Amino acid sequence: MMSRAVWRKLSLGSSSFTGGKYFVRSLATCEASRPKVITEIPGPKSKALKEQMDVVHQASSVKFFGNYDESFGNYLVDADNNCLLDMFMQISSLSLGYNHPELITSMSNFSFLSASCSRPALGSFPRHDFPTTVKEALISIAPKGLSSAQTMLCGSSANENAIKTAFIWYETQRRGGPPTQEDLESCMVQKPPGTPQLSVLSFQGGFHGRTLAMLSVTRSKPIHKVDMPAFNWPVAKYPRYRYPLADNVDYNRKQDSDCLKSVEALIDERKRSGCDVAAVLVEPIQSEGGDHYGSAEFFRQLQRITNERGIVFIVDEVQTGGGGTGSFWAHDFWNLDTPPDIVTFSKKLMIGGYFYAQHLKIQEPYRIYNTWMGDPAKLFLLRKSIEIIKRDKLIENVKEVGTTFQNGLRQLQSKYYEKMSNVRGLALFCAFDMISAQKRDELMNKCLQNGLLVGGCGESAIRFRPALIFGEKHAEIALDILDKSLQMV
Amino acid sequence: MMSRAVWRKLSLGSSSFTGGKYFVRSLATCEASRPKVITEIPGPKSKALKEQMDVVHQASSVKFFGNYDESFGNYLVDADNNCLLDMFMQISSLSLGYNHPELITSMSNFSFLSASCSRPALGSFPRHDFPTTVKEALISIAPKGLSSAQTMLCGSSANENAIKTAFIWYETQRRGGPPTQEDLESCMVQKPPGTPQLSVLSFQGGFHGRTLAMLSVTRSKPIHKVDMPAFNWPVAKYPRYRYPLADNVDYNRKQDSDCLKSVEALIDERKRSGCDVAAVLVEPIQSEGGDHYGSAEFFRQLQRITNERGIVFIVDEVQTGGGGTGSFWAHDFWNLDTPPDIVTFSKKLMIGGYFYAQHLKIQEPYRIYNTWMGDPAKLFLLRKSIEIIKRDKLIENVKEVGTTFQNGLRQLQSKYYEKMSNVRGLALFCAFDMISAQKRDELMNKCLQNGLLVGGCGESAIRFRPALIFGEKHAEIALDILDKSLQMV
Repeated sequence: MMSRAVWRKLSLGSSSFTGGKYFVRSLATCEASRPKVITEIPGPKSKALKEQMDVVHQASSVKFFGNYDESFGNYLVDADNNCLLDMFMQISSLSLGYNHPELITSMSNFSFLSASCSRPALGSFPRHDFPTTVKEALISIAPKGLSSAQTMLCGSSANENAIKTAFIWYETQRRGGPPTQEDLESCMVQKPPGTPQLSVLSFQGGFHGRTLAMLSVTRSKPIHKVDMPAFNWPVAKYPRYRYPLADNVDYNRKQDSDCLKSVEALIDERKRSGCDVAAVLVEPIQSEGGDHYGSAEFFRQLQRITNERGIVFIVDEVQTGGGGTGSFWAHDFWNLDTPPDIVTFSKKLMIGGYFYAQHLKIQEPYRIYNTWMGDPAKLFLLRKSIEIIKRDKLIENVKEVGTTFQNGLRQLQSKYYEKMSNVRGLALFCAFDMISAQKRDELMNKCLQNGLLVGGCGESAIRFRPALIFGEKHAEIALDILDKSLQMV
Repeated sequence: MMSRAVWRKLSLGSSSFTGGKYFVRSLATCEASRPKVITEIPGPKSKALKEQMDVVHQASSVKFFGNYDESFGNYLVDADNNCLLDMFMQISSLSLGYNHPELITSMSNFSFLSASCSRPALGSFPRHDFPTTVKEALISIAPKGLSSAQTMLCGSSANENAIKTAFIWYETQRRGGPPTQEDLESCMVQKPPGTPQLSVLSFQGGFHGRTLAMLSVTRSKPIHKVDMPAFNWPVAKYPRYRYPLADNVDYNRKQDSDCLKSVEALIDERKRSGCDVAAVLVEPIQSEGGDHYGSAEFFRQLQRITNERGIVFIVDEVQTGGGGTGSFWAHDFWNLDTPPDIVTFSKKLMIGGYFYAQHLKIQEPYRIYNTWMGDPAKLFLLRKSIEIIKRDKLIENVKEVGTTFQNGLRQLQSKYYEKMSNVRGLALFCAFDMISAQKRDELMNKCLQNGLLVGGCGESAIRFRPALIFGEKHAEIALDILDKSLQMV
């Protein structure tokens, strides 16, 4: 394991850090060659730190503490100096792994320092380089057909403001213009017409964040929702496919049609009762909910339903966006004729926000607004990340290694068919099910003690969310550890 | 104006940056000595940038673009090289002004770089130094009687999670324990008992953020609320005092008692209808709403009402916290016998979050949770800021200069009594009213063209939110510009 001093020498002392060759060399130099576990996890230091943390800050969900200053690439070093191959990457939020040399170096310019120390209220007084940065960091990766973005701070605020944009558009269409005096007055006492009875349709098993309104569209787990008052908004069925897909065509097609029927019925019912559905909010892959997929045809039909009814079609790519699926956006696989109305993002994109179609552009100022509305420092980091992802062809890498890794998972599935099933995924964004929640938790723990960090989701699924720099050699190590751990549960 | 090259030499080349003396010297060396306006504002470059931005990102609320890399201390340089004395400081969010040398320097350590590039999901895998950082950055400034904090990303998420904490506590008390199986099942279909009919009481004129649920407790301006579905939660009156306070004792006392009566009536009414008020959410000074104050006695009585009824008392110090009032927390002035149950923060504290009383500590994991739950890099910056604020006695500075500045405002009020009124405030957190919204907007614009940036709020108020490094000389310049500008409107 590289010491901090060595690292400093490697990365901060040098300013010639731009070549892909150097990057490869630095990966080879700095990254661990394999996991190394020297204590149980959490180890004694993590346990002691958890007790310390518990005194000053909620700590009940903490699994272990990371020594991030000593972590590099695909390997996370914990407080007890255990070195773990990380296929969860901070809940799918790091695209270049830990302490990527060029990201670190990219912060040594004055603009990054100034953006961090002199953070603007960018709705009113943005940095002079903000239009350029948005263009280079975000518009360069915009979903096909979309060319405007709005930055926010996280996935929840991305979805919150996407929905607000939908409400504003829906009411503007209904009125044929901006709010009237009656609207402005009635909204202050929360009566119609200024405070409308609109709703958002979401899906069983969906997850869209944990602010209160997002909990009304989140339907993945009771622990998210219990004790929280909620908006009475409709929830439709989301497909639950059988795998392998090729052997279950009829069953899965019926899943699609049943779900689409439930969507249409709910929208029409709400329309009749005067509580119109203004937006449909959906994940391309229900991630927290258990890595459930919808087919391209399902989503094309869903878009058709929203288009026909004048409803805003919002695709939540907070977890799926950023390249892990082998495409920058998971909805690329749907081959839509026209883009979704809104695509929300966060996690691997380092900030939150959304891309929106031109007809949703809001004319009046201060309707989508708050103090920070994002963070230019994070946008600088994102710009650099995108540059590296493109230059090093990391999306190609994800596709190639994803094939290897999924093939390996299928081999394990044949071997352990009584324990695991439903291997599924797009490139490195993949998952399988264990036969029970208990067995899943046991397997996750065995993997951890054997040096591999993976995520759980849904009732009994294991999900993989490695960084885009996850290579063939990492896949090999991960499959070995999975094999060993599956034997033990 | 200092060039970027000079600045680099000053701040980044040197590592001996810790003395208060050096700070004073660097302020004197780097900060502008007075405003300088060379174009109308927004100038041609800002206008061109706004057109560029409008193509890729919403820009309708943008006033002008800042050249933050060239801004220093109390002065904001815009894209057209106008140099403005800034008494608004990015909507009250910068405590040390622009590019404070020691904040910049504090980012040159590896932990800051690593925290930025390898951002943890800190609910599950926090940095090993997180407990210490929370202690040093946050607990060291905790409101009296509170010793636990929860970090978030912004003011809205701070308030959202404070309210969630209140709901969880309220239902736990009601049940006498954690959620039952029935709660866990019913919440997934959003029915009671798992999805309760609870509410939050807030105040007319209040502002608590712009996520959907926060808009249900925000009652400041129609532009925030129009077209948004809302929770049907109760809203009480907030005092509207006459100034000077000493001449209006009886009137103002009646304001307090009327408001408190409305609070009690609303809470009791909700209780009877089975939609209990679980929390009261209130600002010490309604800021966006127009800089309206409540007396210490008002708040003491408000706390008594919540205590008597088993309701969580949440004080929203997102704008008032951080030192501008001459105390770190505005509720310090109330001399409460016991602390508020929750105090929320953001803005000057660089991240969002809240302090909470021990009885509100949640036992079950994953109930208050999301991917990032804050940002350790911002916490490092906050720690350094707090160190500087304490060392340089900046709260003392705010009190002293606040007296000078408010005295100056009162002299202007005597001179321009037909135009301005109700000078009020705590130290540098102060405001006055103009006779109309139109006159207020005119005055703000005249000030801007004369080199002074101030904020508006409520119907016709001007608010001042300078950095804590705002000194006597800045007060003198600001008062001169206000005098000149008041003559012109």
